[in-house]
Amino acid sequence: MNQRRVDITALLLAYAQAEPPEDVRAVMRLSALDWAACGIAGHRDGAFDCWAATMTSKGPATRFDGRGGTLADAALVNGTLSHALDYDDTHFAHIGHPSVAVIPATLAVAEAQGASIEQMIDAAAVGAEASVAVGLWLGRDHYQVGFHQTATAGAFGSTVAAGRLLGLSADHMRAALGLCSTMASGLKSQFGTMGKPLNAGLAVRTGVEAAMWAQAGLTSAEDTLAGPLGFGVTHHGEGADVPFGWRMGSVSHKFHACCHGLHAALEAVRGVDLSGARQITVHTHPRWMTVCNQPSPDTGLSAKFSYRHVLAMAAHGCDTGDITAFSDACARDPALVAWRDRVEVEADDTLTEMQVRVVVDGVAHIHDLDAPLPFEVRQKRIHAKARALVGARADEIAQAIDDDDLPCFAQLLTS
Amino acid sequence: MNQRRVDITALLLAYAQAEPPEDVRAVMRLSALDWAACGIAGHRDGAFDCWAATMTSKGPATRFDGRGGTLADAALVNGTLSHALDYDDTHFAHIGHPSVAVIPATLAVAEAQGASIEQMIDAAAVGAEASVAVGLWLGRDHYQVGFHQTATAGAFGSTVAAGRLLGLSADHMRAALGLCSTMASGLKSQFGTMGKPLNAGLAVRTGVEAAMWAQAGLTSAEDTLAGPLGFGVTHHGEGADVPFGWRMGSVSHKFHACCHGLHAALEAVRGVDLSGARQITVHTHPRWMTVCNQPSPDTGLSAKFSYRHVLAMAAHGCDTGDITAFSDACARDPALVAWRDRVEVEADDTLTEMQVRVVVDGVAHIHDLDAPLPFEVRQKRIHAKARALVGARADEIAQAIDDDDLPCFAQLLTS
Repeated sequence: MNQRRVDITALLLAYAQAEPPEDVRAVMRLSALDWAACGIAGHRDGAFDCWAATMTSKGPATRFDGRGGTLADAALVNGTLSHALDYDDTHFAHIGHPSVAVIPATLAVAEAQGASIEQMIDAAAVGAEASVAVGLWLGRDHYQVGFHQTATAGAFGSTVAAGRLLGLSADHMRAALGLCSTMASGLKSQFGTMGKPLNAGLAVRTGVEAAMWAQAGLTSAEDTLAGPLGFGVTHHGEGADVPFGWRMGSVSHKFHACCHGLHAALEAVRGVDLSGARQITVHTHPRWMTVCNQPSPDTGLSAKFSYRHVLAMAAHGCDTGDITAFSDACARDPALVAWRDRVEVEADDTLTEMQVRVVVDGVAHIHDLDAPLPFEVRQKRIHAKARALVGARADEIAQAIDDDDLPCFAQLLTS
Repeated sequence: MNQRRVDITALLLAYAQAEPPEDVRAVMRLSALDWAACGIAGHRDGAFDCWAATMTSKGPATRFDGRGGTLADAALVNGTLSHALDYDDTHFAHIGHPSVAVIPATLAVAEAQGASIEQMIDAAAVGAEASVAVGLWLGRDHYQVGFHQTATAGAFGSTVAAGRLLGLSADHMRAALGLCSTMASGLKSQFGTMGKPLNAGLAVRTGVEAAMWAQAGLTSAEDTLAGPLGFGVTHHGEGADVPFGWRMGSVSHKFHACCHGLHAALEAVRGVDLSGARQITVHTHPRWMTVCNQPSPDTGLSAKFSYRHVLAMAAHGCDTGDITAFSDACARDPALVAWRDRVEVEADDTLTEMQVRVVVDGVAHIHDLDAPLPFEVRQKRIHAKARALVGARADEIAQAIDDDDLPCFAQLLTS
């Protein structure tokens, strides 16, 4: 741990009380729609059905699987299901998925409290900011050694979000953060298994429980983030300096149902007619060469890790934003397989991990995922993505958010 | 991490299948009585009432607070309440409290499965052994940096115990251990707060959930204890070599409701008439001088950390095994306060932390907490302790264990 420059607990208490600016609120409303669509589709996918059925509590909180449950169970189930497809939003400042870890917490508590969507959005915004701040404070060592920031930093975000909606006093919020410190967990070794979505669900539940339990009088040590034997020192935290600020305006939404390493290339050729292209070269950061450069995928899953195949899909008008597009049949489609041979992929260490240069018959198309998307473009694309995921339900959900109608929003989540 | 010499996951799978020897079973039966008495008394103490009431699920599993709940809620509540008084058993090999982390898991699953007490005892025994083995594998670094072995190693023990009773296949048990790796948590910074008992409850719940979820088909990475990005490397594990063996025969039961550092001194003078002693010198390991050598305590709580006061209690026939004996009135009793001046405490670095030498008017009385207690003595003293905690109920619980009557045992836990 570096010498402590920021009092991270005080910073989180400040987020819990802060009023998010309108641009952050606006992005959180979009994230709420994006989250809802990912969760509904994640439940419809069915992979987690048997697991979710083991949470048998009855209660007032809405679950994607249609069972009403306790706040804790709803938090766990909804957090997990909304991350099941790995299609939810990402913040690259600390590399975590903020919405899946905080929105389910705010929904559960907002329903129990009779709060409005706007109060839910405010709580989600400060919770997401808190998770990004904790993630930055923990730093890269924490992530590199093996912790999953979505889960660990996310649990603190969920605590702040749930605690705000419960109206915790500063003392209770401090206790809740202390309890979160002793509960938060989650390893990157789960990537590629059902344990990864579970990590998100656990983070949400931790926040809801920590906040509820602090309110019920459970005590905790005073400063268990940065203090002795605290979360930072035990979890390889760097203790980086993190000024108060609003960072959720630059959250990234996924518009392609494949590995994030492929997104910049797909964005670069968005609107470019590739159908007649003869020679395409993708220049990308060397890191991605071992991650998503499968030259000849033959399953839907492996196609999600192939520059050559996703560009073939783009050239043939397949919607890479549609999770059902990545089928085994698509991966083996003779027309696409033949077309893949027009694509070469080359490492270029002058590019960042977020940048790509796609040269189509001598014409370079570049894209940087770090460049902010204009709000109206982002809005339009999230609506389109949500419609691709859940059909007309997407418009009803967007309307419920616009109408500030929480019961309607919650009811639309169950299929 | 040292070079890996033991495959810790394989070791845990071996415990899950093993038949515990009869001497370990016999000690686990005593621990079950000890655990039950601690849990009933922990619930009657009332401090956790408001917290436990937030677990609102209905279900078949018995809870000390009389509410039937889901297996997960019962595991959480019972684990926490049985550690509330910090009066349960301790294993000094890794420094953890094994019974509170595994017995509640076995009770919840055994009730749901209609298993017998003997099956519950077997599962608790292998679970406790597994927790000690994981604790030894993680080693002192893990504990020193700030992790609470009762919680972290305990969660793996709970997983093995619950998984055995659920009859998990080896593949499912491996998945359960993987899920436990991404869920287990718990910091020592919670010591002295309600977060410490909570850590035990979380460990129990983690094990029950990991086992149930693996059975429901939740997948996990293959080797998330010793593997890359696994629990060991992320949680400062040493990866020590741990041969298969039975270690629960040497578990320690607490017979005095005060700091463990005082126990050796109280044991040394057990049966010695101190009422007429003029000069008593306690020679103890230097570590305890800053832990439990309060010279002039004036509250019940501070009396629990005072050699001078607990010896005064012993000299006056106060039962140091009775949790209600450590009252403010006792700490201020003029007769005891005056008698304390006969006691001096001196550090002696030739003694281990477990050893003490109490010199009474020139006669030395020594005790080593590491020396095993003959079974019949241990049995008699645990029965006496249980009676002091919960009265005649203790005999009924012991009878239910002898009769292998799980429904009766469970019913006796609720007050």
